[in-house]
Amino acid sequence: MNDEINILILSCGTRNKIVQYFKKELADKGYVIATDCSDLAPAFYDADKYFVVPRIEDDNYIDTIISICKKHNIKAVFSLIDPEIHILAKYKKDFLEIGTLPIIPNLSIVDMCFDKYKMYQFLIKNNIKTIRSYIDKGKFYRDVDLGLINYPVFIKPIKGSSSNNINKVVSKDEVELLFNRFDNLMIQEYLVGVEYGIDVYIDIFSNEPVAIFAKEKIKMRAGETDKAISVKDSELFELIKKFVKIVGFKGVIDIDLFKVNDEFYISEVNPRFGGGYPHAYECGVNIPNMIINNLKGNTNVDMIGKYDENIYMMKYNEIKILKNSNMTVI
Amino acid sequence: MNDEINILILSCGTRNKIVQYFKKELADKGYVIATDCSDLAPAFYDADKYFVVPRIEDDNYIDTIISICKKHNIKAVFSLIDPEIHILAKYKKDFLEIGTLPIIPNLSIVDMCFDKYKMYQFLIKNNIKTIRSYIDKGKFYRDVDLGLINYPVFIKPIKGSSSNNINKVVSKDEVELLFNRFDNLMIQEYLVGVEYGIDVYIDIFSNEPVAIFAKEKIKMRAGETDKAISVKDSELFELIKKFVKIVGFKGVIDIDLFKVNDEFYISEVNPRFGGGYPHAYECGVNIPNMIINNLKGNTNVDMIGKYDENIYMMKYNEIKILKNSNMTVI
Repeated sequence: MNDEINILILSCGTRNKIVQYFKKELADKGYVIATDCSDLAPAFYDADKYFVVPRIEDDNYIDTIISICKKHNIKAVFSLIDPEIHILAKYKKDFLEIGTLPIIPNLSIVDMCFDKYKMYQFLIKNNIKTIRSYIDKGKFYRDVDLGLINYPVFIKPIKGSSSNNINKVVSKDEVELLFNRFDNLMIQEYLVGVEYGIDVYIDIFSNEPVAIFAKEKIKMRAGETDKAISVKDSELFELIKKFVKIVGFKGVIDIDLFKVNDEFYISEVNPRFGGGYPHAYECGVNIPNMIINNLKGNTNVDMIGKYDENIYMMKYNEIKILKNSNMTVI
Repeated sequence: MNDEINILILSCGTRNKIVQYFKKELADKGYVIATDCSDLAPAFYDADKYFVVPRIEDDNYIDTIISICKKHNIKAVFSLIDPEIHILAKYKKDFLEIGTLPIIPNLSIVDMCFDKYKMYQFLIKNNIKTIRSYIDKGKFYRDVDLGLINYPVFIKPIKGSSSNNINKVVSKDEVELLFNRFDNLMIQEYLVGVEYGIDVYIDIFSNEPVAIFAKEKIKMRAGETDKAISVKDSELFELIKKFVKIVGFKGVIDIDLFKVNDEFYISEVNPRFGGGYPHAYECGVNIPNMIINNLKGNTNVDMIGKYDENIYMMKYNEIKILKNSNMTVI
């Protein structure tokens, strides 16, 4: 059945809501198939089918994914974890050759997103406000002496994700300690302001952003947004439109910003569904449907800002229970 | 209607599953009423009724809770956060006088649970294995010199909860840095072993443990168990029985342990529903029902270990959406 719009979600992990939304939007038009390297990925159990696959470092990894795409007539594939998006971008041509569309930007853009210092340099070069960052601690110390930056500052891995290994430090001693202990660190200004999370969809055909959803973060937990409120801001929308066009993004993007003294500072970009996307979906910003629409060959119309303001989102824990004997590893 | 078994859950926060389980077990026998200091507590929206109350530090706090208990004919009250349990224990008599039973141990026991060093001393005194701990860094350095303990070690607040402000440190320099920066710290041995989480119910009438559920933790996230598997171990059950009897616990307890070289080491005790309790419930260890049974005047029979082994639990995020206009602050 070549009309089926089957979608493959890689490294589904705990992202049950994303799997559920695609199932709902596809209804009887196709299957949602999920992969993960662990059979303890709860999102497996919301998918139509699932496969335990090798870890992304494994030699057989990409062949396994491509053979699943072929065998199950997959129209589109995307991943929910950062290092795998790099691999999808690298093998984009191989997927396109078998009729599977990876929903991701080009490799150079993907790599810029995962290198916080590269992204910093790009933003500075393009006159887009961002958070003052250093990889050279000597330069940082000189700027402290000049009064251009003050403690506390954040020290984080250049290529880290979520809140892993982020330290708030208050003295040169602590900077030295961390730089002696770890490699590839970045020093980042500690901004006091309101944090925003933005979900964007850039149409596969028109290359135009067609959905932008903005939320003000109210509470964070372990690097993830725990509570947020939907907001609209035309200045913010213009900044996002300008930014995604300059970079040349495609597909689903999640952007973190700070607002300080009425100015927006871009802090981080992930070329995938962000952990806060369910908020956007529940407010009517239906990116799964836009993807399906693209897969049907249609261009999406501009729906930027078409949602209600002042809608709160609150996360809590749900669980899946699995009897050992039911586990099937394919 | 004095036959109603109405239950008040304080600081319900994100503990939707606990509210859901009590609603299910009570069915038409009574209401589940929830409080929180924030109207963005997602568990509110699973309760029959909810009230936004002052913060626990507020002068009106305890009067507000007691007046809710009176007005709504509350048979039992418990809290899901640590500092509030201390207050409930302190005012236990006031609750009992109006016919409301706080499901908690006595004040001295509650306070020992929240002071990790007091608990350490108690366990050592009673010959129960625990994790080597120090509040005196001089003594710690001497033990390092003697080879009794080695880096890395954990440094954490004596009275902290979850994984807040826990640092894994590898050198004296780092110990000095943290002790200079923060007060009331404890140095704790870094044990390499398997972690267990235990849910216990100690009957209100018999003072005997009647339910013990053990899970091996497979994956942690932000100090919480993200994935676990149910296990049974008669030696572990005996240790838990001995421990809860020596202390004199009552009600719901959550215990963390490590297993190293076939020996169990108690690490932490919380006199409340732990974050992993839904695993126990889904395996048939029905503590809400045992509480309701006690409230009906019945003593529970011993159900220790009456559950299936090898059942996996996996957490994921669910969300509640709230329109601003629906918010009612009472």
